[in-house]
Amino acid sequence: MIDYRSDNTGRAAPQILEALVRANHDTALGYGADEWTANLQRRFSELFETAVRVFPVATGTAANAIALAALGPSWGIIYCSEVAHINTSEANAAGFFGGGLKLAAVGGQHGKIDAVLLAETLAGISPAQLHRGQPSAVSLTQATDLGAVYSLDEVRAIAEAAKRRGLRLHMDGARFANAVARLGCSPADATWRSGIDIMSFGATKNGGALCDAIVVFAPDLADGLAVQLRRAGQVWSKMRFASAQLIAYVENDLWLEMARASNGIAARIGAVLREIPAARLLAPIEANEIFLELPDGTMDALERDAFQFYRRSRTLARFVCRFDTTEAEADALAAALRRHLGTATTPRAAE
Amino acid sequence: MIDYRSDNTGRAAPQILEALVRANHDTALGYGADEWTANLQRRFSELFETAVRVFPVATGTAANAIALAALGPSWGIIYCSEVAHINTSEANAAGFFGGGLKLAAVGGQHGKIDAVLLAETLAGISPAQLHRGQPSAVSLTQATDLGAVYSLDEVRAIAEAAKRRGLRLHMDGARFANAVARLGCSPADATWRSGIDIMSFGATKNGGALCDAIVVFAPDLADGLAVQLRRAGQVWSKMRFASAQLIAYVENDLWLEMARASNGIAARIGAVLREIPAARLLAPIEANEIFLELPDGTMDALERDAFQFYRRSRTLARFVCRFDTTEAEADALAAALRRHLGTATTPRAAE
Amino acid sequence: MIDYRSDNTGRAAPQILEALVRANHDTALGYGADEWTANLQRRFSELFETAVRVFPVATGTAANAIALAALGPSWGIIYCSEVAHINTSEANAAGFFGGGLKLAAVGGQHGKIDAVLLAETLAGISPAQLHRGQPSAVSLTQATDLGAVYSLDEVRAIAEAAKRRGLRLHMDGARFANAVARLGCSPADATWRSGIDIMSFGATKNGGALCDAIVVFAPDLADGLAVQLRRAGQVWSKMRFASAQLIAYVENDLWLEMARASNGIAARIGAVLREIPAARLLAPIEANEIFLELPDGTMDALERDAFQFYRRSRTLARFVCRFDTTEAEADALAAALRRHLGTATTPRAAE
Amino acid sequence: MIDYRSDNTGRAAPQILEALVRANHDTALGYGADEWTANLQRRFSELFETAVRVFPVATGTAANAIALAALGPSWGIIYCSEVAHINTSEANAAGFFGGGLKLAAVGGQHGKIDAVLLAETLAGISPAQLHRGQPSAVSLTQATDLGAVYSLDEVRAIAEAAKRRGLRLHMDGARFANAVARLGCSPADATWRSGIDIMSFGATKNGGALCDAIVVFAPDLADGLAVQLRRAGQVWSKMRFASAQLIAYVENDLWLEMARASNGIAARIGAVLREIPAARLLAPIEANEIFLELPDGTMDALERDAFQFYRRSRTLARFVCRFDTTEAEADALAAALRRHLGTATTPRAAE
Repeated sequence: MIDYRSDNTGRAAPQILEALVRANHDTALGYGADEWTANLQRRFSELFETAVRVFPVATGTAANAIALAALGPSWGIIYCSEVAHINTSEANAAGFFGGGLKLAAVGGQHGKIDAVLLAETLAGISPAQLHRGQPSAVSLTQATDLGAVYSLDEVRAIAEAAKRRGLRLHMDGARFANAVARLGCSPADATWRSGIDIMSFGATKNGGALCDAIVVFAPDLADGLAVQLRRAGQVWSKMRFASAQLIAYVENDLWLEMARASNGIAARIGAVLREIPAARLLAPIEANEIFLELPDGTMDALERDAFQFYRRSRTLARFVCRFDTTEAEADALAAALRRHLGTATTPRAAE
Repeated sequence: MIDYRSDNTGRAAPQILEALVRANHDTALGYGADEWTANLQRRFSELFETAVRVFPVATGTAANAIALAALGPSWGIIYCSEVAHINTSEANAAGFFGGGLKLAAVGGQHGKIDAVLLAETLAGISPAQLHRGQPSAVSLTQATDLGAVYSLDEVRAIAEAAKRRGLRLHMDGARFANAVARLGCSPADATWRSGIDIMSFGATKNGGALCDAIVVFAPDLADGLAVQLRRAGQVWSKMRFASAQLIAYVENDLWLEMARASNGIAARIGAVLREIPAARLLAPIEANEIFLELPDGTMDALERDAFQFYRRSRTLARFVCRFDTTEAEADALAAALRRHLGTATTPRAAE
Repeated sequence: MIDYRSDNTGRAAPQILEALVRANHDTALGYGADEWTANLQRRFSELFETAVRVFPVATGTAANAIALAALGPSWGIIYCSEVAHINTSEANAAGFFGGGLKLAAVGGQHGKIDAVLLAETLAGISPAQLHRGQPSAVSLTQATDLGAVYSLDEVRAIAEAAKRRGLRLHMDGARFANAVARLGCSPADATWRSGIDIMSFGATKNGGALCDAIVVFAPDLADGLAVQLRRAGQVWSKMRFASAQLIAYVENDLWLEMARASNGIAARIGAVLREIPAARLLAPIEANEIFLELPDGTMDALERDAFQFYRRSRTLARFVCRFDTTEAEADALAAALRRHLGTATTPRAAE
Repeated sequence: MIDYRSDNTGRAAPQILEALVRANHDTALGYGADEWTANLQRRFSELFETAVRVFPVATGTAANAIALAALGPSWGIIYCSEVAHINTSEANAAGFFGGGLKLAAVGGQHGKIDAVLLAETLAGISPAQLHRGQPSAVSLTQATDLGAVYSLDEVRAIAEAAKRRGLRLHMDGARFANAVARLGCSPADATWRSGIDIMSFGATKNGGALCDAIVVFAPDLADGLAVQLRRAGQVWSKMRFASAQLIAYVENDLWLEMARASNGIAARIGAVLREIPAARLLAPIEANEIFLELPDGTMDALERDAFQFYRRSRTLARFVCRFDTTEAEADALAAALRRHLGTATTPRAAE
C-alpha cells in the first residue's frame, strides 16, 4: 500500500519524540510555568522576529476555534473561504467556542478569499444593521484547503480590506510550513508583517505528534486567551512535554526541511501531471496536496494498484504528500496515472 | 529542593514515553481510526470487565467538562462537592461546555458528597419548578480533592439517591488509580458496578504525560460525545500517540504500582503526623495528598528548609506525593515537621 | 407618506388591544399558570385539530431560535433557505440559543428549499463524518422571505426528505396567516398533517402587538422548551396579557381576515405589475410582499412621490402590505409605477 | 381569597394599558426606531439626571441575564447574594447568556452582599489564577430578595470594593421602585451616583404589564448590548407598544406612588407583627415583602382562612403586597396572625 490519504496518517519526526523524551527529568511547575514553555516563547519570538505569545494546544481545531473566539464578540461574523477547514470540517467548533459566532463564506479561487469580494461584502453591511450580527474578523488558510498558497500581496490585500473595517485577521496555518517553504519568505513576512493578528500554527500534519499552537501577534489578545484555553481543557498540566515538541519542531529548520520534502514530492508528481490532460487539477500544486478531477474508473484502478487516497466526490481525488513520502512512491503514483490516463504531447496548465 | 507541589510537576513513567515512541512507525488512519485506539478499547474493556468506550483527551478539565455536558440538557444542574475541582479549579469549563449548565454544591466531609444531604437537596426541588433549572447529574471525585477516598458503600449510596431521581453519575477520577489502590477493589467495582455512568480517567497526575481519558459505561452517551469531542478540539489526528500512552499506563498494572507508591509515601508521612498534634489533618490520608493545618510560621520554616508545596490558605498547606517521591524525601519532610512542631505522646486521629 | 416599509411598522388590530385591557382584573398566578394561558392551549388545540402546546414569546426571533434549539444537539446542522430570516436577519440567534448549532443553506426558488436538493445534500453526509456536525432539522419559512408560498405538496416533499433521515421539521410562520389565507387550507393541513413538528406562529406582522408564539406539535419537545424559555427570559410573569392577545388574534378568524386583506392589497398591485415589463418580480406575489427589480432612478422617483419602502440592493425594492393598507394606497403605488415605467401590451409573468 | 402570593399575580395600572392603546395609531419604524422609544430615552435620562440608554425587554430574567453578560467575558465570575433571584430563580439564565459565566455567592444579611466579605473574597483571588475564572462584576438586588433595602452607604461600600478591583456593578431593580420609595432619594443617587453601571429596571411587579427594561449608565456597555438583545429575541418589532408602557410607568410619579402603596401595606402589617413574637421576621420589612417564620400549623390555618401566599419552606412563609392590596386586606391578615399566634406586651424587633 502507498498512502496518500492525509498528512496526519504519517509518523512524527524522530527528533520531536526524542525531545519529548529528553524533557522527562526532574520536577517542573504545571500548566506552562516551566522552563520549556518559557524557552518556547523565546524561540518563537526569535523565529517571528517579534515578541509573540505561544500557546500549545492539542489540535488544529482547538487552535482555530479558540483563536477565532478571541477575535470578537459572540455576535461576530467571521469571513472565510467556503472550503475552509473551519467551515467544513470542524463540527462548527468556531461557532461553539465563539458562543454562537457565525462563519460567512467569501468567494475566491483555489480555496482563497478574494480581497475584492471581501471588500464588497463588507461594504454591503452597515454597522447599524444589528440583525445581521457584526463583522469581526477574517480567517484565511495558508496553504489553502485546495493546496494553493496565497502570495504575500494577496494576504496584504485581504488584511487591508479587513483592517479598513476594523476587523482582525486570523491565519489557519495547519500547513503554514508548506506555505513558508513555497514562498521562501520569513515567517514574519508571512504573518504579522502582512497583517496577521493571530495564527493557528500547525505542526501535526508536518511531522509533529500531539500538538499544534496558537501564536499571538496582537498582544491584547493574549490574556483572555489564556483563561479561555484553561477553560477549554487545552492547557496540559505537564506542559513541558508539549513545549519540548514545538521547540524541536522549529530547531535547525526541521519544520521547513520537512515541508520542503513534502512540497517537493507533490511537485514531482505535478511535473508528470502536466503531460496527462485527462487528470485535471482543481488548483495549482503549491504545497503538499494534489486535488485531481479524474475520469470514471480511474480511482477504482488506483485503489486496485494499492494506492490509498481520499475520494472527495465521485470525480475528485485528493492526494497528500507527507514529509517522509519517498520519491519512489511519487514516481509510482505518476506512473500509475500515466498508465491509466495516457499522456498528451502538450503540457496542461492548472486552472 | 524537595517538591511536594503537585503530582503534575513530576516526570512521566518511562514505559509510557517508550510506548509513544514505539508507535512511531508506518502510516495509520487519523482521528482514532487506528489500531492503537482500537486496541485501547479492548484493553480498557478487559480492565473494566465490560464493553466500554474510551476517548483519550488532552486534560482532566476536558474530560470532566465534556463528560458532564453529555449527562443532561444545558439547563441542567449537576451536584458536586463544594471543593470539587470542577467547581473550584476549571475556570467553569463545565458551565461552558454544558452551554450554561450549573454546578450546585452538596455538603459532606473530606471533599465527599454526603448521600443523605444529596437526597434531601433533590427532595426539595420539584420537577415543576422550571425557574430552578433541572437536576441532571451528580459528579463525585475519587480520590476526593482533600485526599480522602469514598468507600464503595458511599459511592453506591450516592448512586442510589441520584438514580431514584433519574440523575446520571459521573466520577472525576483524576486520582482514580490512588483510590483503586487504596480500596483494593476491581476497577469495575469502583465504577459501573457501583452506579457510575461515565468517568474522567486520570493518568497525567499518576505518571502520565499528555493525556487522560473519558471512559463511558452507559452506551447511550458515547455517540454524542464523539461529535462533541471533535468540536472541542480534543480528537488528535495522530491519535495513536495518545492511545499508546494509555495502553502502556495500564499494562502490567503500571498504573496501580505507581499509585501504590505515591499512596505509600503519603502514608509514611502520615504515620509520623500522628505524633505531631500541632499539625492538624484536614482529612484522613487515604491517597497521595496531605492537607495540613499548620501553626503560623511553620510554612515559612519549611520553605527555608527547601520544601516546595502549595499554601491553600494562610494556615493550610497541601503536600502531594508523586509516584517517584522517595522514602528519603518522605522522611525528610516528616523530620522537618517534627523538628518545627514537636511531638506528643498520644497519637492524634484525623478529623 | 404611504408606508410600504414593513408589516411591523403598522398598528395592532384594536380587538387585540381590547382583549389585553379586558384581562386586567383580579389576580392570577404568574408565569403562565393562569386561566387565559390555559384557555390559549385549548383554543389553539381546536384551531389545529390536535393537542398542541403553545408558548407565547416576545418576538419571532425568540420563537425561531428557541424552537430550533429544541430540535437537536448543539452540534446539529439545521437546513434552511439561503434567504431565510433565521439565516440573514436574526444576528445568529439560532447559533446562540442552539449552543453553536449551524445553519446550512439549501438551494431552491423564491425563498423555498427544494426537496430534491435537500435530499441530495443529506445523501452527501455520512453519519460517521463527525467533523461535519450532524444533520438535525430543517426549517422552512411559510410564506417565504421572498413573498412566495409553499404548496402543501412542496412542504410534504421536504418533510419526507427530512424524516427519511430522522430530521425534525420547523416552520417559521412569521407570515403563516398569509400563507394559510393563500392556500385556503386548514392550519392543521398546513402544519402537522404535512410533517411539521414545531412552528413559530407569527402574529406581530399581521396586526399583533407584543407577542408571537411557539406551537409544538411533537409532544416530546415541549418539556425541555418550557425550561429553555424560562432561561431565555421569554416567560412573562403576567402571562395573561400575552395569552389574551393571542386568543383575540385567532378569535372569529380575525387573523385570516387580516391576512386576506394584506394579501389582497399585494395582489391588487400585482395585477397592475403584469402590464409593466420594466418592473421585474423576484418571486410570484402569493402573500403580502412584493420584491421588485427596478430600473435605475425609479426608487428615487418613488421616494419623491412620498412612498416608503426598503431598498434591498441598488436595484431591488421591497414593498410590504399591511392588514390596514388601503386600496387607495395600492392604487397610488400602481399608478406611480405605471407613470415611471410605462406599460406594455403583453402581460408579464413572474419568474 | 386574599392574594399575597406575589406582586406578579396582580393587575397592571390602568394608566399603563391606556398608554399602550393610545400608541396604536399611524405607522412607525420597527425595532425601536420609533418616536415612543426615542421619547423613552429622553424621559429616563431626565429621571436619572444623566444620559442613559434604555432597552425595553420582556422580563426581568432577560434584563438581568443580558445585562450581566455585558459586564465581562464569558469566563467571568459575578458575585451576588446566595439568595439573589439570578442565583436561585432564573434557571441559570446568567450562565447561559454569559456563555458559561459563573455566579459566586458572597455572604451578608437579609439578602444583601456584605461589602467587607466581598472585599475579602476578591482579595483571595489572584489575577494569575486562571483556573478560577476571573472576577468581572457584582450584582446586588435592590430591594433584596428578602424584602430589605440597601442604604446608599451600603451600595457605595460595595461599589468601592468592586471598583478597586476593576469590577462593574449591576443592580437587579426588580423592586427598584419600592427601594427608592423607601430611601426617599433620587433615582440617580440610588444608582449611578452610588456606582451602578447598569441596572435591570423592573416595572412588571409594580403595576407594569409586559415589559421591564435595562438601563445603561456606563455608555461603553450599550452598543454590544443592542446586538445581544436583538439576538436574544428581546427587541420587539413593534417596540412602541413597550416604550409607551414604560413612559406611562414613570409619568407623574406613578411608579413611586404604586411602590409607596405596596410598601405602606407591608408596613401596616409589620406594625402589628411587632406585637406577635411567635411570628419571626427573617428580615426587616423595608419594601413590600414579608418573610415570616411561623409555628407549625399556622400556614395551614391561614390557608383555611382563604389567604394565599407562598411556602418557602416548612416554616417560612412569604407575603407580598401589591400596589392595589387594600388596607382592609392588610388588616385581615394582621388579625388572622394575631388570632392564630397571640400577642405579647413587648414589641419585637426584626433581626
